[in-house]
Amino acid sequence: MKALVYNGPGDRSWDEVEDPTILAPTDGIVRIDTATICGTDLHILRGHVPETEPGTILGHEAVGTVEAVGSGVGGFKPGDRVLLSCISACGRCRYCKEGRYGQCLGGGGWILGHTTDGVQAEYARIPFIDNSAYRIPGQLTDEQVLFLADILPTAYETGVVSGMVAPGDTVAIVGAGPIGLAAILTAQLHTPGRIIAINHSDGRLVLAERFGADVVINNSEVDAVAAVMELTDGLGADVAMEAVGVPETFELATELVRPGGRIANMGVHGTPADLHLERLWIRDVTITTGLVDTGSITTLLRLIESGRLDPSLFATHRIALGDIEGAYDVFADSRNSGALKIVLCGEHSTSKPDQELAEAAAA
Amino acid sequence: MKALVYNGPGDRSWDEVEDPTILAPTDGIVRIDTATICGTDLHILRGHVPETEPGTILGHEAVGTVEAVGSGVGGFKPGDRVLLSCISACGRCRYCKEGRYGQCLGGGGWILGHTTDGVQAEYARIPFIDNSAYRIPGQLTDEQVLFLADILPTAYETGVVSGMVAPGDTVAIVGAGPIGLAAILTAQLHTPGRIIAINHSDGRLVLAERFGADVVINNSEVDAVAAVMELTDGLGADVAMEAVGVPETFELATELVRPGGRIANMGVHGTPADLHLERLWIRDVTITTGLVDTGSITTLLRLIESGRLDPSLFATHRIALGDIEGAYDVFADSRNSGALKIVLCGEHSTSKPDQELAEAAAA
Amino acid sequence: MKALVYNGPGDRSWDEVEDPTILAPTDGIVRIDTATICGTDLHILRGHVPETEPGTILGHEAVGTVEAVGSGVGGFKPGDRVLLSCISACGRCRYCKEGRYGQCLGGGGWILGHTTDGVQAEYARIPFIDNSAYRIPGQLTDEQVLFLADILPTAYETGVVSGMVAPGDTVAIVGAGPIGLAAILTAQLHTPGRIIAINHSDGRLVLAERFGADVVINNSEVDAVAAVMELTDGLGADVAMEAVGVPETFELATELVRPGGRIANMGVHGTPADLHLERLWIRDVTITTGLVDTGSITTLLRLIESGRLDPSLFATHRIALGDIEGAYDVFADSRNSGALKIVLCGEHSTSKPDQELAEAAAA
Amino acid sequence: MKALVYNGPGDRSWDEVEDPTILAPTDGIVRIDTATICGTDLHILRGHVPETEPGTILGHEAVGTVEAVGSGVGGFKPGDRVLLSCISACGRCRYCKEGRYGQCLGGGGWILGHTTDGVQAEYARIPFIDNSAYRIPGQLTDEQVLFLADILPTAYETGVVSGMVAPGDTVAIVGAGPIGLAAILTAQLHTPGRIIAINHSDGRLVLAERFGADVVINNSEVDAVAAVMELTDGLGADVAMEAVGVPETFELATELVRPGGRIANMGVHGTPADLHLERLWIRDVTITTGLVDTGSITTLLRLIESGRLDPSLFATHRIALGDIEGAYDVFADSRNSGALKIVLCGEHSTSKPDQELAEAAAA
Repeated sequence: MKALVYNGPGDRSWDEVEDPTILAPTDGIVRIDTATICGTDLHILRGHVPETEPGTILGHEAVGTVEAVGSGVGGFKPGDRVLLSCISACGRCRYCKEGRYGQCLGGGGWILGHTTDGVQAEYARIPFIDNSAYRIPGQLTDEQVLFLADILPTAYETGVVSGMVAPGDTVAIVGAGPIGLAAILTAQLHTPGRIIAINHSDGRLVLAERFGADVVINNSEVDAVAAVMELTDGLGADVAMEAVGVPETFELATELVRPGGRIANMGVHGTPADLHLERLWIRDVTITTGLVDTGSITTLLRLIESGRLDPSLFATHRIALGDIEGAYDVFADSRNSGALKIVLCGEHSTSKPDQELAEAAAA
Repeated sequence: MKALVYNGPGDRSWDEVEDPTILAPTDGIVRIDTATICGTDLHILRGHVPETEPGTILGHEAVGTVEAVGSGVGGFKPGDRVLLSCISACGRCRYCKEGRYGQCLGGGGWILGHTTDGVQAEYARIPFIDNSAYRIPGQLTDEQVLFLADILPTAYETGVVSGMVAPGDTVAIVGAGPIGLAAILTAQLHTPGRIIAINHSDGRLVLAERFGADVVINNSEVDAVAAVMELTDGLGADVAMEAVGVPETFELATELVRPGGRIANMGVHGTPADLHLERLWIRDVTITTGLVDTGSITTLLRLIESGRLDPSLFATHRIALGDIEGAYDVFADSRNSGALKIVLCGEHSTSKPDQELAEAAAA
Repeated sequence: MKALVYNGPGDRSWDEVEDPTILAPTDGIVRIDTATICGTDLHILRGHVPETEPGTILGHEAVGTVEAVGSGVGGFKPGDRVLLSCISACGRCRYCKEGRYGQCLGGGGWILGHTTDGVQAEYARIPFIDNSAYRIPGQLTDEQVLFLADILPTAYETGVVSGMVAPGDTVAIVGAGPIGLAAILTAQLHTPGRIIAINHSDGRLVLAERFGADVVINNSEVDAVAAVMELTDGLGADVAMEAVGVPETFELATELVRPGGRIANMGVHGTPADLHLERLWIRDVTITTGLVDTGSITTLLRLIESGRLDPSLFATHRIALGDIEGAYDVFADSRNSGALKIVLCGEHSTSKPDQELAEAAAA
Repeated sequence: MKALVYNGPGDRSWDEVEDPTILAPTDGIVRIDTATICGTDLHILRGHVPETEPGTILGHEAVGTVEAVGSGVGGFKPGDRVLLSCISACGRCRYCKEGRYGQCLGGGGWILGHTTDGVQAEYARIPFIDNSAYRIPGQLTDEQVLFLADILPTAYETGVVSGMVAPGDTVAIVGAGPIGLAAILTAQLHTPGRIIAINHSDGRLVLAERFGADVVINNSEVDAVAAVMELTDGLGADVAMEAVGVPETFELATELVRPGGRIANMGVHGTPADLHLERLWIRDVTITTGLVDTGSITTLLRLIESGRLDPSLFATHRIALGDIEGAYDVFADSRNSGALKIVLCGEHSTSKPDQELAEAAAA
């Protein structure tokens, strides 16, 4: 089969590789119908994720069809259409029993396209498939559910749920990249009174409004703390979310929040931040961090099914899976391409590449 | 009347001052029967709390008897025996309605002996007495309830409750001063599996065991992180509490906790700490800070009443209220005096000074 | 002044009575600008509420303007525009401190128009005004906030919050009278996947859809249990709410719910229901009852302010306060009049009677 | 092997039957070292549980040693010493993912000794062993953990946790049979202020005190409602638990609870109870029912390990597993034998039959 292989820093290729096979009784083999690329894949390619060894197939977000299952699999059978979670769950360790799958101690967690072969391929081996895949309701397209593999549950769980967004709350989100936008989208499920998006690019803020932000603040132009205080009678936001992953944005989030408020970190950080305990010790704040567990996929699926949630705004490009190398270029150049998420269309995808669509339209 | 007056940095005196009077309809006047001294009083005396102006009467922990109440007071009448909370609550602002009295926006919060006259005196004016004092069950002595004014609810609320200590948990407490000891004592109300006390003084660790620690670690001698990991199969503690107030101990607390665990800050900090987000972002931790609200006084009172909680271990010295100047010296020199909390006995206290007791015994 | 006086079963009149005066330092006197009538007022008139004595002024839902306050009042001053809660809260008893104002032990609870004079009058005395009234943001009309006095918080607190409605849930609401409709409206704040309304009148079900029900079931025609099971793969609803107040509807609610689900009683009951423990003991259900506390008013106000919640669908009629006797007739005959809630417009109301509007339009 | 076979109502025998074998890849075969008898086993024998077919091996509480595991088992290997839960969990259905194993939709739930062969035998097949058994820490005896198979988690989960027992609470427990006693024992983990046991037998109440009740009420002699009201200033208990399973005791529990309190049903009911909604609708009560999930076994194990919980008081008799028929007689005649739980000692049990101990002592 063909697969996108990481050959070491800066080097990837769409190669012919051996088909995956069942290695453990709890494995499933899934034909990949539709996949996508994550910012984390770019991190790996830059060589920033040393535990990913050259030769690994990348990708941890896909929709597919079960081809085969191991003898210990009870929840799926060949032919089932499934969403593949970015998190694998052994289902029997302490953390899995708590639903904290991201911290799985039994061989799961984030392993796909990281410490084992991933899903940017024609087929993939899915360890612990019983607890790591989700059946897709018949009427939903691949594209409608694809972003439940990672980005939506990540924002919803580590931002909205950990931040305990409640009806009427003022929510301030620092950063309007894909994860910040996903937080804007999913925060609306808890009906806050006001969502404030903060970014230093007007282009991103236009997007933030499109995803549902009520107020946007360009913090390269105005003092975000002063602006939020003015909107909140000097108290601060009920919830502040960090969606970038650098010390400055985290520290900004801690300044935006009211006494008794919550600061939810969503960003992936590489260096420490200053925690101003001399100011915060007395302010009753709660700070949360976390890797996604994807336990919310069931809930989010139901909401897509009932028309209450629509992630389709993320799909900026549709490209054939076989053209994944070009797709990486488009995604990496998001500043110019405007890419948020790229829908990689396999042969059996319910989506068609934009080019085909364009050609069909032209014909 | 007589009162302990702060005259500016390093200068205090037991002076004759004017009796307090009712200034607002929600005030009460309380005769102080028994009081105590807090580490925060020493901070003020060192000049570290600039908002406390010279001329202020110190003290925010006392038991007394109501002498008079304003026209708007409904819950107390002269003669009622009351515990005075270190936190005053207006009872009608947003925060008071949430029970977050420490953040009161209506003129309360920590004001006694801070921004208004306190309770180390023969009489005190208690603003918002309806929501700031607690009736004492008849059979309890002053000394049994005195430490509910501040130290016990502080440790219980900002450490045990915020840290969500649950049955079976491993709880690691960094620091075994009065607040750490109060956390050891009150954590037992939630039946953790194991309480680990960490301190660099063996003397403190002996006390920690007396208050209920199951394991003690002298971190001037052993690597506390390694020791906790060994006790917890390499995972870390379920809850880590910071009870000192310096960056090193806070950072240690963040290293002790398992993925999914809680870090509860109890210490009063003067400088920022490093928050190692490059390690913590993925570990699902929750960090809480907070000033005490004292809303737990009702619960703690019931537990003292039913014999389930006994704070008497804290009372290391009993000194006449009139000898408060000497009491400050004993308290400030805790290293030599072994003082944890000093019971200041007024004329009507249910406690008697140790000296009188000693003289009586000698007679 | 004029007021609607209950003269005993079946007898009410719009009488000249003495103006209210401040009786306690925590009282406020409020000029009534806009009021409404509750189904409970009809119950009292039928003589079903024996604790309401003849001579009592009825009404517990109004918007007004503060005229005077007692010496112990700190949160309001003359001229403040306020929403009056149907629940009075002393603010200092055990239940008020927990936010459970409906169970106030200090003289509050549901007293207005019940055990003390109410608000269907030109002026009203509001006991404990500090904790029983809410300042109205300037830009909101009386009509926008009027239904926050009782019906919206009742449905939201005892139905949606007690029923723990969560994103994606299937919610079944038995009864589509005003309280059921308010539950349909406010359940949407928690983004359930599907709201099912059950009633035996098609007219009510049309309204249910207008308020936001996704599925309506006429249970005089179809088997509601079978219909809900079919919609939920045989499991049942996540949450079932009872909004009628008779044993049959309560028992129906208990049959609609899935194992692990919640049954929230909102109805006012006069007789016992059968609780089928022989079926329910093993099904992990949670049943809640409750009187409204109105603590959610702050949240609901914010949501109206931000345009996320619009209760205006309830206002079916606007009648001058002076014509309240006719308004009672219209309200009591809701089957023919189609009345949900009547806006009683005082002289200073931001609403105008329909008649005036019609005349103005005709002119 | 030998096993206790249910031959139909009133008929049981210790028979030679075929050894169990692995039927599914998720099965384990366990040698039974120590087992016990449950009141439910007596119900089956009386023919009250029609879904249990003649020929079924009874028993759902045991400690044993893994002999063999299926190909899909990852958490256990031959030689592991395990506690067998009364609840089997498929680990992958909606309910198992929520930790609500008792409601398992994937073939688990209460099946052992009910709808499939149980554990009162020399060997047993354990379906879904990965999520249905718990490794026993080396230093603990069989007897120390045996009652974690059912009775302790049942009382803790459906009584203490569902009833949300909190520090300082007044807890009233109606019924002092084994389940009521287990509730008394485990409620102490949450440090209530006072545990009140209610029963109509003085003998049971003596036991209740031994297990930790602070107050005992013989409700064949005194009015339990009046007694509880007197103890609680007329308010009622914070939590009332039903531990019998008949309408009268459930209705009593609903009368004992204060406004805002919780009623936790633990009993197995055969007939409906009256729910006095005409009194309860306004009282803010929460009623919970539920089958045990045994998810708390991990917590309870840790507490036994750390010496915080000691279930040994339940072990009134130790009888050889081969003498199980006599053991059933002793257990069924608890009134005369005083039996609470019988420890059935297999050949490899860490416990020895009382007879052997007596003989050894006599020798």
